[in-house]
Order: sequence, then structure tokens, then C-alpha cells
Amino acid sequence: MFEPKIKKILDAVRGRDVSVEEAVEALRHLPYEDITFAKIDHHRHLRQGVPEVIFAPGKTKKQVKDIAQAMYRKGRSFLITRASEDIRKSLRIRGAVFHEASGMISVGGQKPEKGNILVLTAGTSDIPVAEEAAITASFLGSRVHTVFDVGVAGLHRLMSNRVSMDQARVIVVVAGMEGALASVVGGMTDKPLIAVPTSTGYGASLGGLTALFAMLNSCVPGVAVMNIDNGFGAGCLAHKINSL
Amino acid sequence: MFEPKIKKILDAVRGRDVSVEEAVEALRHLPYEDITFAKIDHHRHLRQGVPEVIFAPGKTKKQVKDIAQAMYRKGRSFLITRASEDIRKSLRIRGAVFHEASGMISVGGQKPEKGNILVLTAGTSDIPVAEEAAITASFLGSRVHTVFDVGVAGLHRLMSNRVSMDQARVIVVVAGMEGALASVVGGMTDKPLIAVPTSTGYGASLGGLTALFAMLNSCVPGVAVMNIDNGFGAGCLAHKINSL
Amino acid sequence: MFEPKIKKILDAVRGRDVSVEEAVEALRHLPYEDITFAKIDHHRHLRQGVPEVIFAPGKTKKQVKDIAQAMYRKGRSFLITRASEDIRKSLRIRGAVFHEASGMISVGGQKPEKGNILVLTAGTSDIPVAEEAAITASFLGSRVHTVFDVGVAGLHRLMSNRVSMDQARVIVVVAGMEGALASVVGGMTDKPLIAVPTSTGYGASLGGLTALFAMLNSCVPGVAVMNIDNGFGAGCLAHKINSL
Amino acid sequence: MFEPKIKKILDAVRGRDVSVEEAVEALRHLPYEDITFAKIDHHRHLRQGVPEVIFAPGKTKKQVKDIAQAMYRKGRSFLITRASEDIRKSLRIRGAVFHEASGMISVGGQKPEKGNILVLTAGTSDIPVAEEAAITASFLGSRVHTVFDVGVAGLHRLMSNRVSMDQARVIVVVAGMEGALASVVGGMTDKPLIAVPTSTGYGASLGGLTALFAMLNSCVPGVAVMNIDNGFGAGCLAHKINSL
Amino acid sequence: MFEPKIKKILDAVRGRDVSVEEAVEALRHLPYEDITFAKIDHHRHLRQGVPEVIFAPGKTKKQVKDIAQAMYRKGRSFLITRASEDIRKSLRIRGAVFHEASGMISVGGQKPEKGNILVLTAGTSDIPVAEEAAITASFLGSRVHTVFDVGVAGLHRLMSNRVSMDQARVIVVVAGMEGALASVVGGMTDKPLIAVPTSTGYGASLGGLTALFAMLNSCVPGVAVMNIDNGFGAGCLAHKINSL
Amino acid sequence: MFEPKIKKILDAVRGRDVSVEEAVEALRHLPYEDITFAKIDHHRHLRQGVPEVIFAPGKTKKQVKDIAQAMYRKGRSFLITRASEDIRKSLRIRGAVFHEASGMISVGGQKPEKGNILVLTAGTSDIPVAEEAAITASFLGSRVHTVFDVGVAGLHRLMSNRVSMDQARVIVVVAGMEGALASVVGGMTDKPLIAVPTSTGYGASLGGLTALFAMLNSCVPGVAVMNIDNGFGAGCLAHKINSL
Amino acid sequence: MFEPKIKKILDAVRGRDVSVEEAVEALRHLPYEDITFAKIDHHRHLRQGVPEVIFAPGKTKKQVKDIAQAMYRKGRSFLITRASEDIRKSLRIRGAVFHEASGMISVGGQKPEKGNILVLTAGTSDIPVAEEAAITASFLGSRVHTVFDVGVAGLHRLMSNRVSMDQARVIVVVAGMEGALASVVGGMTDKPLIAVPTSTGYGASLGGLTALFAMLNSCVPGVAVMNIDNGFGAGCLAHKINSL
Amino acid sequence: MFEPKIKKILDAVRGRDVSVEEAVEALRHLPYEDITFAKIDHHRHLRQGVPEVIFAPGKTKKQVKDIAQAMYRKGRSFLITRASEDIRKSLRIRGAVFHEASGMISVGGQKPEKGNILVLTAGTSDIPVAEEAAITASFLGSRVHTVFDVGVAGLHRLMSNRVSMDQARVIVVVAGMEGALASVVGGMTDKPLIAVPTSTGYGASLGGLTALFAMLNSCVPGVAVMNIDNGFGAGCLAHKINSL
Repeated sequence: MFEPKIKKILDAVRGRDVSVEEAVEALRHLPYEDITFAKIDHHRHLRQGVPEVIFAPGKTKKQVKDIAQAMYRKGRSFLITRASEDIRKSLRIRGAVFHEASGMISVGGQKPEKGNILVLTAGTSDIPVAEEAAITASFLGSRVHTVFDVGVAGLHRLMSNRVSMDQARVIVVVAGMEGALASVVGGMTDKPLIAVPTSTGYGASLGGLTALFAMLNSCVPGVAVMNIDNGFGAGCLAHKINSL
Repeated sequence: MFEPKIKKILDAVRGRDVSVEEAVEALRHLPYEDITFAKIDHHRHLRQGVPEVIFAPGKTKKQVKDIAQAMYRKGRSFLITRASEDIRKSLRIRGAVFHEASGMISVGGQKPEKGNILVLTAGTSDIPVAEEAAITASFLGSRVHTVFDVGVAGLHRLMSNRVSMDQARVIVVVAGMEGALASVVGGMTDKPLIAVPTSTGYGASLGGLTALFAMLNSCVPGVAVMNIDNGFGAGCLAHKINSL
Repeated sequence: MFEPKIKKILDAVRGRDVSVEEAVEALRHLPYEDITFAKIDHHRHLRQGVPEVIFAPGKTKKQVKDIAQAMYRKGRSFLITRASEDIRKSLRIRGAVFHEASGMISVGGQKPEKGNILVLTAGTSDIPVAEEAAITASFLGSRVHTVFDVGVAGLHRLMSNRVSMDQARVIVVVAGMEGALASVVGGMTDKPLIAVPTSTGYGASLGGLTALFAMLNSCVPGVAVMNIDNGFGAGCLAHKINSL
Repeated sequence: MFEPKIKKILDAVRGRDVSVEEAVEALRHLPYEDITFAKIDHHRHLRQGVPEVIFAPGKTKKQVKDIAQAMYRKGRSFLITRASEDIRKSLRIRGAVFHEASGMISVGGQKPEKGNILVLTAGTSDIPVAEEAAITASFLGSRVHTVFDVGVAGLHRLMSNRVSMDQARVIVVVAGMEGALASVVGGMTDKPLIAVPTSTGYGASLGGLTALFAMLNSCVPGVAVMNIDNGFGAGCLAHKINSL
Repeated sequence: MFEPKIKKILDAVRGRDVSVEEAVEALRHLPYEDITFAKIDHHRHLRQGVPEVIFAPGKTKKQVKDIAQAMYRKGRSFLITRASEDIRKSLRIRGAVFHEASGMISVGGQKPEKGNILVLTAGTSDIPVAEEAAITASFLGSRVHTVFDVGVAGLHRLMSNRVSMDQARVIVVVAGMEGALASVVGGMTDKPLIAVPTSTGYGASLGGLTALFAMLNSCVPGVAVMNIDNGFGAGCLAHKINSL
Repeated sequence: MFEPKIKKILDAVRGRDVSVEEAVEALRHLPYEDITFAKIDHHRHLRQGVPEVIFAPGKTKKQVKDIAQAMYRKGRSFLITRASEDIRKSLRIRGAVFHEASGMISVGGQKPEKGNILVLTAGTSDIPVAEEAAITASFLGSRVHTVFDVGVAGLHRLMSNRVSMDQARVIVVVAGMEGALASVVGGMTDKPLIAVPTSTGYGASLGGLTALFAMLNSCVPGVAVMNIDNGFGAGCLAHKINSL
Repeated sequence: MFEPKIKKILDAVRGRDVSVEEAVEALRHLPYEDITFAKIDHHRHLRQGVPEVIFAPGKTKKQVKDIAQAMYRKGRSFLITRASEDIRKSLRIRGAVFHEASGMISVGGQKPEKGNILVLTAGTSDIPVAEEAAITASFLGSRVHTVFDVGVAGLHRLMSNRVSMDQARVIVVVAGMEGALASVVGGMTDKPLIAVPTSTGYGASLGGLTALFAMLNSCVPGVAVMNIDNGFGAGCLAHKINSL
Repeated sequence: MFEPKIKKILDAVRGRDVSVEEAVEALRHLPYEDITFAKIDHHRHLRQGVPEVIFAPGKTKKQVKDIAQAMYRKGRSFLITRASEDIRKSLRIRGAVFHEASGMISVGGQKPEKGNILVLTAGTSDIPVAEEAAITASFLGSRVHTVFDVGVAGLHRLMSNRVSMDQARVIVVVAGMEGALASVVGGMTDKPLIAVPTSTGYGASLGGLTALFAMLNSCVPGVAVMNIDNGFGAGCLAHKINSL
């Protein structure tokens, strides 16, 4: 990905505009900012097509704030996922938007103009994860449509949303418990399908592993599976596909 | 369960037709036959509503044969499940019927006259387990109807069998991989539903555990779940319910 | 299940009482109410033989209340399971009954008149799950009898409840730890038996998985197994079978 | 998905060209062929964008042959996956192509003309799964480029294939053991990335679960994960995305 | 176990001192007390050689108190295990002794006079479980000697307690983490050895499963293994063996 | 354990019968024989109360033979467990006895004269493990009585063996599937109880883990649990206890 | 390890400076201090090359304090790991240093003078574990350099720290989620590499097991793996290797 | 690692000895040979300090042969691990040495002259893995000493090998079952310790996972753990450390 850059440095070497030592150094230099406990990667969006994101759990409130400030100062758009109430309150960034269900904070982002992504949930308890997916894809520039609580126990609820499925370019299915919604939707569409298992359930749902394994074993071939509760990843992938 | 029997013994004691010692002995005596390595329980059918069955794996060919002979000599009906080719060939019992797909052997059994049990499979690979369920219920006296390969990847195949579902008193769903068929059928019927996970699949199907856990977490409440590949158990339960 | 309805629509099309477009629309329309984050399925009882139920964990207090209000306004009976103290207090619905041990809330329900269901527990700690099963079956219209703390460590306690077993049409066994009660009861009866593993225990009880796996492997054939702590499911299935 | 068809039937009803009863029947009729042990779904390609496929394991040789014959007679293209030596030899279908590494058999298929899919493997042992993905996508009409044995233990091997990555529209990474290749490739590209864990490895590789879990937890957001060894699914999804 | 009792009833029947009906009833009667949510088994000590015990977790404070009161009123000795601070405070039973480390409460019990049991722990964190074992065995009448913190990382600590090992009739080893102490002690003694894995540790100690599995796989044959943290069970078994 | 020996060496040092260097050497010397790939421990019986045993799986045929020869030459008694047909045939040791069901080979051993051990199995498939336990305890000098196929599905079979239970000093329960027999027997006796889970079963029996976990969670306190299929360990422990 | 000491005792015996009885006693005596609930091993550093350490979780505040005081009184250096806020505050030891991120407390320690250890983390959330490793190695006498947040999603961040890698004698990689950093670093260096999986992540990261298994399966041979979050162990090993 | 090489290329660019385009190409060029299904990495030894190795399982016989030939033609030393009998026979490379127990094939290698590595096994069945470690380290240039069958059930066998421990610079412990040998050896030495769990055992040894987890949880801090049966990795790491 850095080939043009390398070529430019080599041209400078050849033209003796930079010394060999400087060139070696330059070949090592890469566009990130070091704030000791975090290396902020300001070019990630260009390189991977995903936003810089701060995954809040496991970081101290101060660390989240410092990383956010560093990004904000550079004038960049970014997301914070799974922010606690505490973090939300302490953050003082103009234009930061709080998303209630998912605990997400978005700063900036694209206008949602591209294609159409449909996010479905099996139940009401799956909404936080669905919101994470929807906000992420929307932040990246995709139009997103959401339909909640259309699990397979009442197939007619799903059937009456066939039009939404037909209009989408990519479909995200968010479901916990046995995760059957992924297979059923997959059997009804030829669109790329992203399945997000959730930790909704108890006992033998094993914290979402049952839905995860079920989705990986879907009798419908080619379902793209995400980690449990990983709405953010689903939003990224959905947008990447939608952007093609 | 032996109360009338106990009462009869007590009456005899009271009437001094039997001594106290004989009574103690009689109270201990129970209707099984001891062939050392197995205690054949000739009254199990009466007590539990299930047939005496020889689960072949883990027994030597000679043990299976000896138990079968002991039952046969008593003129009893019985089933052998998961018999190897080798066992089948060595067994010399008049009227024994071999069931190809499941490896079952049935000797005797009831006329299938009661109610109606429907056995569905998600795929072709689930047929051996479905046959085990169907033969068992039929052996016990239930009418059984089977429909194979109606998995959720092609819901229309299932939909066109709605009549069979409506006519059944009990439905058995046999499915491997993600086991979603159980939830989908469960969402379409008010009949008692028995779900049998199968070991069909690979990788994250975990030898059937994924289907098992999925069925236990069905978003449709009240699905009766069996052990992996346990068609025999499903047949027993379906018949018990069908007999009410 | 909607065949008569479909036929009626087709008759109207034929009689030109409705346009083709309206018919297409009508064929899509199904009897649920959309309150955005939940699709309330007012006909589930008819279709699946189970009550509409609000599983409280994972939903916000407001969501539980809003769904409950929507049902209540339609004059429907319903259950809320595993309600927190907080939810109970906030809910203002006339005639709502709180069930202490299980955290269930019932609104309306049938008169318990059908057949007889016996619910047994191995220990005192299994009572909340047993109550969930009993209240559910009772709410649906079954007579339920409960006997607590008759685990296999003291078989005589079980034996002295033989009469209750003989009088039941369906038996529900609720047990944690090693879950042996299911097999022992199963060996003593020919009634359909529903086993509910509970999370009672510690260490190698693995949060109820040990009891679950033990019940799935019962040496008594045909035991219907539920998810861990799933008293609600057991109540639904017991009632379905009892209603035949 | 069948809306135009439904509309046509309704028009015929309106026009009295078909009776209501016939219409009801027609609404139930769906384009599959019933050969008892299998329901062949001739329109799956249209509906789901994936080929009809025969997953050979778990089916008898005769079942595979019969399903293949039924498809062949209809003049359809199809794939057989994981065919044993025995099946390959018994099959007599003109134009069937055998793929050595993966054990796949392809009959017919599209010309590979669309876009460009890159399939990478970490090691030599991952080639069978990569071939399954490549053949599947190619069969569906995608151009596929493969690069084998570029695992992270020798990053330079990967780096020298940067051009291939840049030219692809979709990238499939096939890796066993710790599956780190998915994250490394993901960090270098903005293309949609499909990760297929393989069962390559031993001991704590847990038959591929380690690679699977590692890929699900990739620090690169939005990696689409498949079941262990599921090259077929990866091929389907890659083609779907490539076709957008 | 009730044979003499049965014989006595039969004698009475024979002697016409009791009617047949009364005898049937008497044969059903067993020595437990029903307080609805619990069946208190006053003869368990005689039958199983273990004390009646109230396992507090999972019971409400009121249930623990009511069961304790019922036992106390009968003048019986008993134990409460894993009592919360809250339970301890609410219980008003004269002579109840609180055991700090394990959270046990003992009421009454035997004089510890029989043989000699040695309880060893690998670390300081294993003491609560060791205390549970020691108190239980002591309550039942065994002399118990405890030595703490003699894990294999400092074998000399263990070696200098060889005399204690030689003087014991039964040895209980309590260890978490990798549980190696069981094997090392087992290699040094010919006394019956009871191993209790504890949940001490983190990460791959899997809540004690690692120590449990390690002890089950001890290269020293014949180690008796208990559930994780099950000091009570170890105390019961140690006393049973010590009593022979 | 070597204190007298150490004392003797020290006395010799004091008496200048041996040099300090020789004493250091002697303190290092221990009674085993080194045949390079194995260190044969001729005094294990004295130290641990268990026989020297050759666990055949994982050793080459030649290794098993060489170790056996080395022991035989010393005139020692020993056991070989889980010997393959192949090993049995190659071994040429006078007086070696082959035990069919368990694949054990015994050479020498004590007269079975002490106390009385009862070995029970739940089913016929558990007999190999039970035989391993019985032969081991018998080889060490205990009298052993075996009763097979008395699982809880037919409790009366167990009940009619109450006399055997009452006459035993130690009881070994061998059971696969759900392993409930351990709890039921434990509820009926005050004898030390050793539970051996077996790999009998399929699907969710998880190769014996289900029975293992169930036994560890027995509601009867103080059950001594062995590794899956570990009849040898059970025999060792039963004999140790029986010898007290 | 005690051979010189043994020799000295033997010499004294020979010279009749000590009696045989005293010598036996002395051979048993070992350099630890018994404070009943803990045996403090003052010579562990000499024997194992690791510091005496108090692992705080699972010990009461009082136990931690008492052990710390006993060590302090002997004038020894030691570490306390994972100390709660509460413990920190209660401890009154002059010169104790609190380490914020890891919750470690160090008292004394060596001057960090030997060689050079590099500690890398994949992300910001892995810093507490990295600090534990760094403080431990530093306490033992190694120079430690740390670089945080250089995970594989941005390989250039890692690449620009190549000089640090080349200057180290031992490298410690601390990473959660999929743990790919270990393999990538391993592919770039010939230094001994220690990998520490962390519990950073959610869902299928399984509390760190995914990173653990991934590291154990690294395609780079010879990676030394530690328990999840075990920075202390990594610090010990890194120092041992660095000291060679 | 390629810095000097990069510098040289840059010098050539500066001196106009090579064009910019050639330099770009050269920067991409890396020292491996592409034989399509494998990229042979001839410089791995320099970069990672480990040998090029062919892990035979999962590769076809032809692939192993072709990779081996390509290496042989370059005159390189290499190892093949876990070669089947079949592979061994087909390989025709002069000077290839077959190692019976481990199934390893070595071609060339260093003279074992550096330091001293001690490899210990707990039992005879662990020898194949120990041989893999020993041959690997020896091939790389380390002197290796092996002692087999010194498991903790007979600690004296281990104690009498103290001298070997004291003379080693690095110790490798190979053990299956409960893997306790690692902790015991770790408690006796201050040398870097590498623990290799093996799949020796049955039932709850879980194919080596129990030994693996036990070693990861060793109460001795800083044990370096390898994957199950990974003797090759242990040999690589031991040599790397020994070479410092």
C-alpha cells in the first residue's frame, strides 16, 4: 500500500535530495501518533476501510478521554464503543452523539448516502447490538434500515418485511438464543448476509456461543459470521460490501 | 407400582398362606431374568411404556446374541439398535426385521394403529436417526408418517407439507448442523414437538452439540429435546404422548 | 395455518371484491402489532399453543412496561418471566399476580381444569424453576400438583409420593447437581416425563450443564429435556401434552 | 421472492382461468423435485445466489448418485463436495470434473468472468480448503487467483504478494493453527475479507476451533468468518460480494 | 435397610394386630418430616453415615432458618455450609458455632475421638475448603490434624511434615491451580488419599477444573477425587473410611 | 518413609563403617531398576500400597514385554492393563492370566482374603471397567463380589441386591451415560462408595465426561470419584480402604 | 540443592559433634518460617531464581498483611500481585512502591542492570499485564524496555520498533483477542519469545482462552506460553533467560 | 532484519547502479523459493533461529518429497516431523537419519557442542515427544541429555537425577496425565524450565489438555509451556535459550 511512497523516497535518494540514512529512516516512518499507552493510527480508514475506534472496556476512563482528545485535536471522525455511563459524562467533545441502546459515542462521520443495508433482529434484547451495527455503517456512509423483533417463532413478522429484504444490498441478522433467524433469512435471499450472534439467552445459550456455532453451521452456504455481540464489526463489513 | 402385588402378599400373610419369611422374600422378588452379565427386565414395557431394547454398541456380539435369545425364548417383542453388519448376520431369530438406514433390528412389536406421528428431517443425512424414531414408535403401536429433506434453506419444501403437520398429534423434528428446523416448525404448530439433534455436520457442529444447544435454546417455548442422534428416545416419547 | 384466510381472500379476488394489489397486500398482512422495538404477536396462543410471554432479562424496564401495556390494552392474558424487583414495582396493571419464588408475573390466564400435571423437585433450591413451570401450566389451564425436595439421596421421600405419580398424566422433574432424579422417576412411571435441569450446584456442576447432560443421557428412554432453569418451557410442553 | 408468481396466480383467479382450489394448490406448489429421501431444489440458485450442492459425507454412495442423476437429467450445473474416492469412481456423468486436493466434483458451471477474488493460504496443508473455495467461486462465475503458503512466520512471502491483494475485489484467507494470517492480511487491505479456519494443527488447535475463535476475535474489524474447513461457503460468499 | 422394620410389620399383620390397609400405609411411612419446601431426613445419619446438612447457597435466608429450626427442635446435630454473613446473624440457635474461614455453622456433633485424619493444603487460599473438610470430619467424630501451605513449589515444607502423614489413617489434600500436591503426597504414602480441587487460581485454572482434571489423572493410582471446593464431601468420606 | 534406612546409614557413618562420600551416595540410592526407557519401582507396593502396573496403551509391544520381563525376573507380582490382543500373544510369562473383558494380564498376586468389596455396574457395557476394578482389588488381596446390570432404569434389580450391599465393606459403582447409579446406591448405604464413570454412551455423554461430572455432583456427600474408565484406580482405592 | 548441607551434617555425625537423632532432625529442617496459615519460604529466591511473592486474590486482607510483615521483618525483598485498593491502603511498609496499572506492590528488589528485555503489547488494555511482567523482571535485576499498542492491525507501528527488538535479549509479547502479535513478532526475530495471552476481548475470546490457544499453536516454533494475564510468570522467565 | 540489505540497495540506487524500478522490485524480492504449493524459506534459520522443518501430517506424500528435494538440492539441513512409515520409505535422500520413537527424519544439522540441555519424561509413553525435543535441539547445535520415566509417583527416581539437573543450562520436562512433574522439577531448580504436555492418558486427560492446563497453572512461576506433544517447539526454544 505504500508503494508510491517508497518510489518517491527512492527517487529522492537517486536525485541525492535525501541521504541514504534519511531514506532508511523514512522507510521506517509511518503515519501514527504515539501517546505512549496508545499508538493512534490516523490513516487506518484509508488502509482498512474502517474507522478508528476506541473500544472502551479494559481502558481506564482517563485513557479513553486522552485517546479521544488526541483524535479530536486532529479533527478526525471516530467512534467509541461500549462506553460506560461514567465515560459518557466525563467526555467533553463538541458534537459527540450518544447512542442510548448500544452505549456508542460517535464524533463526526460520513453522510449516509451509499446503497442500502438492512439490519434485522430476532428479539427486543438484540437491539443494542443491532444499533451498534447500524450506527457504524451509517457513520461510514451507508444508508441503513432497521427492523426489530422478527424472530422465527413468528415467521409472518419476517415475511411481512420481504420488501425491505429485496431492497437491501447487504443484510445483517442479529440474533441470540438458537440464532435460527440467520438461516431462515439466508434461505429467502441472494444478498450477502452477515450474521451477528448475541449473548441473549441463558443456560445452554452459553453466553452466545450457541448462536455463534449455529450461525457457523447454517445450512445456507456463505453466511458471514461475526464474534458474539460484535455489531461494530458487522457494520464495518456491511459498509465495505455496500461500497463495492 | 407394585401396590396390588404387595397387598396380595400381605393378604396371604394375614391368611397364613405364606410365612413371614416367604413374604419378605416375595417382596424382594421382581420380574427380571438374570443371565449374569445382564438382568433382562421383562416387565419394563408395563412399567415405563417403552420396549426392552438392546443398545448394541459396547456389547460383544455374543452378549447381544445371548440377550436377544433370552428375550426371544420368552416370546417377547424387542428392538436392537445400532447393530453392526456383523451382529445382523450372526443373529438367527425368526421374524427379525432389519432396517437398513438405522441399523435397527425389530422382533415382533405392536400393530401401528394409534393416532399419527409426523417425523421430519432437515436433510438426507438425518434419515438414519429419523428411521430409528419412526421404527420405534411404529413398533410400540403408533402410526408414523415421514417427510425427509425439508430443511430451512428451502422453506417452501416445508411449507408444502403443512397438511401433514396439521394431521399429526405429535411432531418429531430431526436435524443436524444448526438445527433451525425445530424452531421453524415449532413456530408453525401447536402440537407437542420433539427435537432430535443429529451429528450431521463438521467443524463447529461439534459432533451434534451445536444442534443440541440450538434446540435447547429454541425461541419457541416447550420443545422437548433428545440426546444427539437419539431417534430411539424420540420414538418412545412420541408414542407415549400419542397414546394419551 | 392461514389457509382459510387465504381462501377467503382468493374468493374476494375471484368475486372482484378486492383488487389483485390489495390481495397481495392482504396476503402479507399478519396479526401482530408493531411497537417498533417489539412485534407483539397476539395470535401466538392460537398458533403455537403457548402464551405470549415477556422474558424480562435483557430488556429495559421501559421496554417490559411498554410491551405489557400494549398487551393489557388488547385485553390479553400474558406472563412476564424473571422480572426483577424493580420491574415488579414499576408495573401498574390491575390483576397482575406476583409469584415470589420464580419472579413471575401473571396477568389473566385460564382456569386450571385439565388433567393433572405433577411437578417434582430434587431440592429446595430448585423451587423457583418448579414454580415457573407450575404457574405456566396452570395459567394455560392445567391442574398442577407440586412436591418439593424428594431427591435421590433419600429415595423413601420419593417413594412415599408414588400415588401422586400414578395420578398424573404428565410429570415434570426439576433437578440440579447430578440430575439423577429424572432417571429414577423415569424408571418408575410410564407417563411422559419432562426433565428440567437447574443451575443448582457449584464447581463441576458447570452452571447446570452437568444436570442437563445427565438428563439427555438418561438410561430411561424418551425423557423430554429442557434448557437449564427453563421452567417456563416445561410448563408449556406439559400443558400441551396434558391437553391432548 | 415469489411475488410475481403469486401475482400471476391471482390474475388467473381473477380472470377465472383457474379455480380457487387450484390457486390454493398452486400457492403451495414450489419448484422442487421429490425423490423421497431428498427434495431437490432446482431454483436455489435464483433464490439464494448459491449453487445446488451435494455434501457427500453422511449420504450413502447410492444417495449421492441418485441426487446427482436427478440434477443431471434436468440439465443443471451442480457441485459435489468432499466426495470419497469410491463416489468419484461410481459416478458416471459426462463432463464431471474431479478436483484432486479438495475432493470436489463439478458438473457444468459459469464462465469465470466477474471481478477478481484472491484466495490465500497460510500453509501447504490448507490447500484442500482453499481449492474448495476457489472452485466454488469459479463455478459461480468469478475469476479466482490463488497464492499458497504465505503464513505469518515468513511475512516477506506475504509482502511480495501485495500486488495480488491490491488487484482483488474480495480476499479469502485460509489458515489453520493460530489463524493469524487473517488479522495480518486484514491490517493491510480495505477489501472485504473472508476468513476460513482449517483443522490443520494438533493438540490445542482443537480441530480448528483455535483458528476459528482467533479469526472471530481479529483485532481488524469486520472479518467475515466461516465454519472450520468450509471452503465451499467462502466461495459462495466471495462470489456474492464480487457480483455486486 | 428397613428389613427388620418390614419384618415387624409383617409379624403384626400375621398376628392381626394391624390391618392390611394399615400395613400398606406403614410400609410407605418413612422417617422424614415435611415442611413443604423441604423434607427433613432425620435418619440420614443412620442410613448414609453422613450428617444432615443445609447447603445454604440457593436457599432463601428464611428457608435456611426454618430448616435449621425444625432440626433444632428435634434435638438433632447438623451443619450449615457456606452461610452468608446475613444468615449467620439471623440464626438464633443456642450452641451454634461459627467457623470463620469456611462460613460453616455447626450445631452439636460428636466428640472427635476416632483415628486420625490429616488435612493438607497447597496454599493459604485453600484454607476455607480445608476447614470445611476438617470441621465436617470432626463433627462426625474423627480426630483431625491440619497443615497449611505445603505446596510442591517448596517440597521441603511438605517433607518436614512426613511424621504427620505417617500418623494419619486417611489423608485429605486440598489444592487449586495445577493440583500437583495430590500426586506428590500420593507418591509418598500408602494411606487412602482424598483430593479436593479448589477454585484457587485464574485464567486457565478454569475455576478449579484444571486442578480437578489433574487430580483425576494422577499418576498415583486410586486417588479419591471430590467436586471443586467440596470440603464437606471430603470430610464425610474421610470420616467414613476412618471409622472402618 | 525411609527414616529407618537413613538412621541405619547415619549409624554406619558414626561408626565409621562407611565413608561420608559413600553415605551421600547411599542417601541418593533408591530401590529402582533402570532399563533406560523405564525406571522399574520394585518397592512401590510397600510405599503406596498399590501394585506395580504396566499401562500398555502408548507403549510399544517391545517396551511392555521388556518391562514385564524385568519384573518377572525379580520374581515380582504385577498387572498389565488394557493390553492389546497383540501384546497378549507375544508375552511369554508362565502363570500369566488373561482377563477377557478388561484386557488385563495378571502375574502372581495375593490370595483374596480380606474383607469384602462389592462392584456394581449400571449396564452390560460397563463390565470391562468393573472387571478391571475387581481383578485389581482381588490381586491385592481383597475378596470381591460383582453384580452387573443393575442400573436405575429398573430399580428393583438393584433393590434385590441389598444383601450384597449390606455385606460389603466398600462399594464400587461403575456406570456410564448419566451415572445416576452412584447417587442411588449412595443414598442406600453408609459404606465408603467409589464411583467410576465409564465412556458408555454417545452424543452428549461426551465420552464419559457427563457421568464423571454427574458423580462429582452427587447429592449424596462423600462419593469418591475416579477418572473415566479407571477401574484399576478404583480397585486400588477399594483395597486400601478394605485393608484398614 | 542441599548436598553441601547434607555433607556438613554427615561430617558432624562422623565427628560425633551431633547425635544421630539430631542429624535426622536436621535433615528434616528446612529454611522456612511457619506462621500457621502460610509457610514463608525465605530461600525460594536461591532455589528457583524467582522472588517470594504474595498472590493477593483469595487471601484475606489480614493474611496478606501478616505474610508481608513476616517477610519485611526478615529484611527481605518481595512482591505482592493484584492487590486490591483496600490492601494497598492497609499495608504500612516503608519503601513499598505501588504500581498503578497492574496493582502490584514491590518492596526492595535488585538494581535493574542485566541485559535487556523488551515487553510489547498489542493494545492499551494489555498494559496492566505488561506492567506486571516489566516490574517483576526489573525487581529481579533486568533492564526492561516497554512498547505499548503495536498490534497487528497496524503492522507499521510494530515495524518502526524493529530496533528495540534487535537490541533485546528476550522479548515478551502481551496480547489478548486473537493474540496474533506473538506469531508476527516471532516471525521477525531469533530471540527467545515469551507470549502472555490476556483476557482482553469479549464473546468468543473466552476470557483469554482464544489468545492462549492461538499462542500455543503459533506457526513460529518455540514460543514460550504463559497462563492468561500471567505477567508475573513472564517477568520471572524473562529474567531467568536474560541472566544466562 | 533486512536493514543492511536495504541499505545496500539504496546505495546502489544512489550510485545509479540500479534503476528505481529495479530497486522497488529488489525490495520486494525475498529469499524464498516458490514451488507453487509451498514457499520454501531458505533463510528462516537466520531470521528466527529455528530450522526449516516439514510438518508431515496434512501434506501428501508427494508434497513432503518435493519440499524435501527442493531443500536437499540447495544443500540445506532440515527436519521432517511426524513422518509416516510410508513417507520414510519413499524418501531417497542420502544421509537422512530416521528417529524411531518420534518419527522424525533429520538431514544434516549442527554438531551438538553448546551448553547442556536436560530432557526429562514422566513416563515411558512420553518418550516420542522427548525424542522430538532432543533431536531438534541437538540438530541445532546443543548438547542434550535425556532421562526417562522419572514421574512424581516415585519421587526418589527424580531425586537421584539431581546432578543432571544441576549440570543443565535449560531443562525440558515432558509429561502427560496430570503433568505434575513440571511443578516438582520447577520447585527444585533455578534454570529456565520448558514444559511440554503430552497426550498420554485417557478419559479426563482430554487428549493432553489437562496436562497443558496444569502446566500453565504451575505454582512455580515462569514455566514456559508448549502445545500438546510439541517436542519440536521445545527443542527450538531450549536451543535458543542455551545459545545465549
